[in-house]
Amino acid sequence: MRKTVVLAGMAALLATAIAAAAVKPETAIHYRQSVYTMIGWNFVPMVDMIKNKTPWDSATFAKHADRLAFLAPQLLEGFPEGSDKGAETEAKPEIWKNMDDFKSKMSDLVRETKALADVARAGDEAKTREQFRKTAGACKSCHDKYRSEE
Amino acid sequence: MRKTVVLAGMAALLATAIAAAAVKPETAIHYRQSVYTMIGWNFVPMVDMIKNKTPWDSATFAKHADRLAFLAPQLLEGFPEGSDKGAETEAKPEIWKNMDDFKSKMSDLVRETKALADVARAGDEAKTREQFRKTAGACKSCHDKYRSEE
Repeated sequence: MRKTVVLAGMAALLATAIAAAAVKPETAIHYRQSVYTMIGWNFVPMVDMIKNKTPWDSATFAKHADRLAFLAPQLLEGFPEGSDKGAETEAKPEIWKNMDDFKSKMSDLVRETKALADVARAGDEAKTREQFRKTAGACKSCHDKYRSEE
Repeated sequence: MRKTVVLAGMAALLATAIAAAAVKPETAIHYRQSVYTMIGWNFVPMVDMIKNKTPWDSATFAKHADRLAFLAPQLLEGFPEGSDKGAETEAKPEIWKNMDDFKSKMSDLVRETKALADVARAGDEAKTREQFRKTAGACKSCHDKYRSEE
């Protein structure tokens, strides 16, 4: 029994090691940058509405909010161990030294984008604006600590 | 009445022109490449299961299929008029000369990825494998005609 548990544990470790080895650092970096690019693409028209550069359009805002909520949970897998280098990246090495804190900030983003999608779909402009502020705060909180910007 | 219609038509044209002008070609190119990168990131583990390189895992397959179905409808907006150049791109200029055909191929992809997500969620491996073949066919059909590969 004990032997089985140990063997199962070793198999699980091996599987994790293989899975981690399967993705090259530069592939992970390229992937996570793509998720951020898609987030940015959807963020811009939302900011334009928030800043009254374009007229408020609940349906369009909700569409973009829905995409953010779908994209946010896909970021974390782009930060595997060892992907602090391998290609040009703005991700600070502090991420991998504080992975629990980084994961916690990612969870904040997932929660806030989910809340934004929900409130935007309901169509209340004032509440959507308020929740957008919180969502942008979740972005900023992580960028301030873990993103290197020249 | 006629004057109103003409003015409304001109306003619509102007709005379209402004919207198109708002996105730089290089931004659209970078965006669409990011969507394809995310599609590829999710495609690889599916192909590994299809080719029996990794064990079949219905839940994981369904997760990736769900993402493809969410990403596919976001591709087309990355091909605005004028984005045939502006940055390195594999998109052939034929796309903008045959936009109706290109849109039709994109619709095929959206339909097949949606069908794949539905069948994968239902958990039938044989049907999922069959629908994956159709989905990959929709990718290939468009790449063969509109993607320049060295």
